[in-house]
Amino acid sequence: MADLDLMQALHRSTESKIVLLVIDGLGGLPLDSSGPTELEAAKTPNLDRLAVEGATGQIVPILPGITPGSGPAHLALFGYEPLTFKIGRGVLEAAGVGMHVSEGDVAARGNFCTVDKKGNITDRRAGRIPTEDAAPIVKLLDEIELPDVSIEVRAVREYRFVVVMRGKKLYADLADTDPQKTGVPPLPVQALNPEAGPTAELINTWIEHARKALAGRTIANAVTLRGFSTNPSLPQFQDVYGMRAACIAVYPMYKGITDLLGMHILSFAGEDPQDEFAATAEIWTGHDFFFVHIKKPDSMGEDGNFEGKVAAIESVDAALPPLLALEPDVIAVTGDHSTPSQMRVHSWHPVPVLLWAPATVRPDRCKVFGDRECAQGGLGTFPSAQLMPLLMAHAGKLEKYGA
Amino acid sequence: MADLDLMQALHRSTESKIVLLVIDGLGGLPLDSSGPTELEAAKTPNLDRLAVEGATGQIVPILPGITPGSGPAHLALFGYEPLTFKIGRGVLEAAGVGMHVSEGDVAARGNFCTVDKKGNITDRRAGRIPTEDAAPIVKLLDEIELPDVSIEVRAVREYRFVVVMRGKKLYADLADTDPQKTGVPPLPVQALNPEAGPTAELINTWIEHARKALAGRTIANAVTLRGFSTNPSLPQFQDVYGMRAACIAVYPMYKGITDLLGMHILSFAGEDPQDEFAATAEIWTGHDFFFVHIKKPDSMGEDGNFEGKVAAIESVDAALPPLLALEPDVIAVTGDHSTPSQMRVHSWHPVPVLLWAPATVRPDRCKVFGDRECAQGGLGTFPSAQLMPLLMAHAGKLEKYGA
Repeated sequence: MADLDLMQALHRSTESKIVLLVIDGLGGLPLDSSGPTELEAAKTPNLDRLAVEGATGQIVPILPGITPGSGPAHLALFGYEPLTFKIGRGVLEAAGVGMHVSEGDVAARGNFCTVDKKGNITDRRAGRIPTEDAAPIVKLLDEIELPDVSIEVRAVREYRFVVVMRGKKLYADLADTDPQKTGVPPLPVQALNPEAGPTAELINTWIEHARKALAGRTIANAVTLRGFSTNPSLPQFQDVYGMRAACIAVYPMYKGITDLLGMHILSFAGEDPQDEFAATAEIWTGHDFFFVHIKKPDSMGEDGNFEGKVAAIESVDAALPPLLALEPDVIAVTGDHSTPSQMRVHSWHPVPVLLWAPATVRPDRCKVFGDRECAQGGLGTFPSAQLMPLLMAHAGKLEKYGA
Repeated sequence: MADLDLMQALHRSTESKIVLLVIDGLGGLPLDSSGPTELEAAKTPNLDRLAVEGATGQIVPILPGITPGSGPAHLALFGYEPLTFKIGRGVLEAAGVGMHVSEGDVAARGNFCTVDKKGNITDRRAGRIPTEDAAPIVKLLDEIELPDVSIEVRAVREYRFVVVMRGKKLYADLADTDPQKTGVPPLPVQALNPEAGPTAELINTWIEHARKALAGRTIANAVTLRGFSTNPSLPQFQDVYGMRAACIAVYPMYKGITDLLGMHILSFAGEDPQDEFAATAEIWTGHDFFFVHIKKPDSMGEDGNFEGKVAAIESVDAALPPLLALEPDVIAVTGDHSTPSQMRVHSWHPVPVLLWAPATVRPDRCKVFGDRECAQGGLGTFPSAQLMPLLMAHAGKLEKYGA
């Protein structure tokens, strides 16, 4: 029995409320081996108290050594085994710019490239044109119209854009058109099965229109497309867990992922942790599960800004009291993955996790919320996808398995 | 390769002996977060010594957050992955009252219910009639005879009973008859595949006889049946591990589960730990693996009796010397699951485990046998179903895997 089936079979309805506070990129590394990590350096009196009163551990996003992207890392946090459940690149990119992809739509990631007079690619990324230069070119593409289909194009950043096609009998089983080298033309879209043939033709027609629209340009005068995909029809969060879930996030990517799971996506003013916690308070009644996503520590980590990441973590801690005043039954604080500022990228390192649940937790010996303290915590080291059942259990939301 | 296949492929015969001492419901919770758990509060000098000389860890019965019943929890301890190998509810209930279910028999859990003159259920549990009141009613059912089949009915507790049918061409693919609500009659038994049709008819005839036998009563005048199942034909313990195994247990449930695995079930006088250890000594020669099951700490936990659970654990410790004098090569002490007395039920919390094997163990830094001490033990936190291979290895009973 797969884990989600087990949750679907065992979940029960209660009044209890669960907060999953995801501090993006939480796990870190010390700048030198005797020093603290970002989380260890941060002054976090509220999180430390939760860690002392609760239990701690480490979660492994995918498998030891595997660095995750945001998509699989969050699917794992929500209990969806990330090597089984997948979100296509096109759909994920669409989520990242706030475009909804329904079942049957086809989304693709697009790159502007530069081709010579013969149509051969001279630069696969069109000189990494600045985001502001790309905007008017994206607008040209967005104006292309074809019969029987609605096509939406949005800029992502620099030479990257997303295209979503909506219509009848569209299929996403299509091969990438980026030849992965220069000196040759972009590949035509090819169907990977006969059913997708008409969709391939349609997109090739669109590409032709795009070439004409861009023909007067010397750079960014052609496109490649990849990651064709549709809404993956993931099991819906409420069906799996029996909880009405709310997503409180600032960045489109995280709203997009939870949208695919059927969560209620909140709109609210402000972008700081206190704004997110205030928004949580406003919809406290009427929901059972609250996914609160804090982006900044990850951004600081990717900027290589150790002190900035420390400060971003501290600002989460300082903003916590109003959230705690809501008296959730269970609070988990963790990250989707580690983003050590000295590496400037996502990493595979396990992510510290604290689980606070005064009525049901077995406290461990953790004294502060930190990477190395959590490594010795009572929850042990376990896959991120096993966190949700733990939260459900501590909230009294799971029946016994077997007699 | 499934884990049991691996064991079957790698096991080898040696003179070494393994004791698996299961203290039912061993894991616990502190009464307040700064206090000790039941095991931590108990004075256990013998277990502490074994923990210091051996290695410790925590086992997770099913998955993090999943609270197990006795059936899956014990299958896991014996190395049978509990989401793969299952014992039906009827068979497990039969085991609980000492009824043997062979392959091809059909067992079901029965409830007395109360119906009105129209035959509609007014109380699904017949007012939870006391066990002593149910006994004569069960006797009425046990007297029902039908051609070509032998039917045995035994009381469980209050309104619950077990029925086992033995005959030719019986099939257990039958739907439950409890409609799960009042105001409607019990459902007839329905076959879930054509093969089971005649069995459904047979049991419906039996239910008709039961209704007649109970017709004069105003409460407990009808029955519902559920969990139809037969012996699951589990891989036999001796085939998997190459060990002659003995079960030393007081309660029928645990004898029943090990019976399904083909273990030798001991009969002996007395019910205390010292009686169980004395019985173990008597069959020491002639067996390689000894499953000793102690029930009382779980019962005390379910009664919410913290001090009683502490005392029950202490009584196991005090009785240990004769068992240790047998000089087993490997001793594991653990529980099938946690039963925190403050929760009064089984729980999902990991279970402390100690593994003592003077010839082969890598000692850790554990100083006493306790929940939080084991959480930091050298064996780490791992699934219960992975304990058996560890015991086999420490007893020198496993060949190398691969060249």
